[in-house]
Amino acid sequence: MHSISELQSILKNTFDSASFSQNPPELYDPITYTLNLGGKRIRPLLVLTGCDLFHGNLEKAKPAAIAIELFHNFTLLHDDIMDRAPLRRGKETVYKKWNTNVAILSGDTMFALACDYLSRVDPEVLPLALSEFTKTARLVCEGQQYDMNFEARKLVSISEYLEMIRLKTAVLIGCSLRLGAILAKAPATETEKIYSFGENIGMAFQLQDDLLDVFGDEQKFGKEIGGDILSAKKTFLLLKAYELAPESERSELDDCFSDPDLLPEAKIERVKNVYLSLNISQITKEEIGKHFTRALQICGNLNADPESRKVLEVFANDLLKRDF
Amino acid sequence: MHSISELQSILKNTFDSASFSQNPPELYDPITYTLNLGGKRIRPLLVLTGCDLFHGNLEKAKPAAIAIELFHNFTLLHDDIMDRAPLRRGKETVYKKWNTNVAILSGDTMFALACDYLSRVDPEVLPLALSEFTKTARLVCEGQQYDMNFEARKLVSISEYLEMIRLKTAVLIGCSLRLGAILAKAPATETEKIYSFGENIGMAFQLQDDLLDVFGDEQKFGKEIGGDILSAKKTFLLLKAYELAPESERSELDDCFSDPDLLPEAKIERVKNVYLSLNISQITKEEIGKHFTRALQICGNLNADPESRKVLEVFANDLLKRDF
Repeated sequence: MHSISELQSILKNTFDSASFSQNPPELYDPITYTLNLGGKRIRPLLVLTGCDLFHGNLEKAKPAAIAIELFHNFTLLHDDIMDRAPLRRGKETVYKKWNTNVAILSGDTMFALACDYLSRVDPEVLPLALSEFTKTARLVCEGQQYDMNFEARKLVSISEYLEMIRLKTAVLIGCSLRLGAILAKAPATETEKIYSFGENIGMAFQLQDDLLDVFGDEQKFGKEIGGDILSAKKTFLLLKAYELAPESERSELDDCFSDPDLLPEAKIERVKNVYLSLNISQITKEEIGKHFTRALQICGNLNADPESRKVLEVFANDLLKRDF
Repeated sequence: MHSISELQSILKNTFDSASFSQNPPELYDPITYTLNLGGKRIRPLLVLTGCDLFHGNLEKAKPAAIAIELFHNFTLLHDDIMDRAPLRRGKETVYKKWNTNVAILSGDTMFALACDYLSRVDPEVLPLALSEFTKTARLVCEGQQYDMNFEARKLVSISEYLEMIRLKTAVLIGCSLRLGAILAKAPATETEKIYSFGENIGMAFQLQDDLLDVFGDEQKFGKEIGGDILSAKKTFLLLKAYELAPESERSELDDCFSDPDLLPEAKIERVKNVYLSLNISQITKEEIGKHFTRALQICGNLNADPESRKVLEVFANDLLKRDF
């Protein structure tokens, strides 16, 4: 099996030689812009990894890798409209730089392009690959809808939250790996396992994102710390805090989120103090650890050679050991 | 070959037994709502027609028929946001009834569902069917973008306009027929012909829509007459009028579209008078006739039995002989 850095280099060449510019430029310029925002391209890398793990032909996995990245970026483009997010990776989002109509239509075109790339995979595995891809696309939409629903609700349970991030984030990580494995014609039992591995890594990844948003290092995290608190986002940390908080802490949280005059720094500080008193950071780390351990167990059960399993383990570790 | 009414009845059963409701309802209710708005389901009917024409198994064409209808309705849902259209078929559009976010995300889900349905067709023809479908999806997006671009421009040529309606409307009509023919495993020469037939019918259909918007009977047309004039839409009629108008008529048109105090009825009346003096109705009918004749010629060249060709001809006639 190739090393992750070898796969990254193959991926870089794949994207460098792909061109998405066509006419009219109003439609295709935002696509090129989005793809060049400097995302880490984790999902297409997982497509290649899943394929390589089962000794598939990487050449044949390239269109599927591009498809997954196009799909992921399409969801970001539309999510940014829905969330009114002005910035992504430090640059203006498409709906801000152009307008909402452009963001809707360029997003739609990216989805169509994604399907078009997927149609180029080995015809023998296309039915399975396509059905895996479209099922996942639907689940990701469901996840985004639950996320929006939760914004309008006062109470969200931890299990509802975990299901939401599973749909919104984890299934696409699982799908990327499974897609690669499908292209390598791995048996269903193995594609199922690699999917679960990815799903658990995806859960851990998102929970860690929640954690770093409060307790991370701003420089390394690349986003402003405390953004979730300021937007009153119902993250694992906040929901857990409400679950565990005695009356006094509960009303402190309520006060923080209901006082319109509270300064941002003070709000972050006070909520963070509640988290500290309730040991929320440690509890979140345990939840992350649970998913991570489960992923490693599944990895150990994969019918792949030990060296390849090791590559996967190292990858998972790298992904989660962001001290930022 | 089945008659069109037999195919319509098969189609009705197909949609009646399909269910699109799932959780969360916020995501799926608008899909059911949109599909039940009472569209004529011309495109899925064309999928069955294209399949039946080449003696294909209609059972196997049903998922593709549903896919095309889902895709078409997804484009309507997103177009309505972009065009700020409050009504469709006399009922509130999704973004009005719910909100823009719901309309974006339900639309995305419909697109994903469309691809999911398409993934269920005969694996042998899936690669071709999917690539036909995704290419068309991209072209339809391009058409919508050109349409929006034209709104912001002062000058649009007739040929640019015709290319825009080809992309926005005609290619999906062509694709629906070709998809059916592909599923019936018709040879490429025939699927190419049936596509051109559909494309020409689609052009004629859209041009007739432009015509009826000004000269139709409101009761039968189902939309308010003069809507295109009131929104200053650059239709074939308006662009042709500008092309042919001598200085006096040209400034009459300019006056009509630049005077903010002009009452709607007066505006429609005065623009209509310019059209009448320039014989625009007749010229539009000739353009429609040109595409219709071309379609019938292609139909005559199809390698299908005369009876089946007749069904296709009658269908095209019915579609265009709306006196409304």
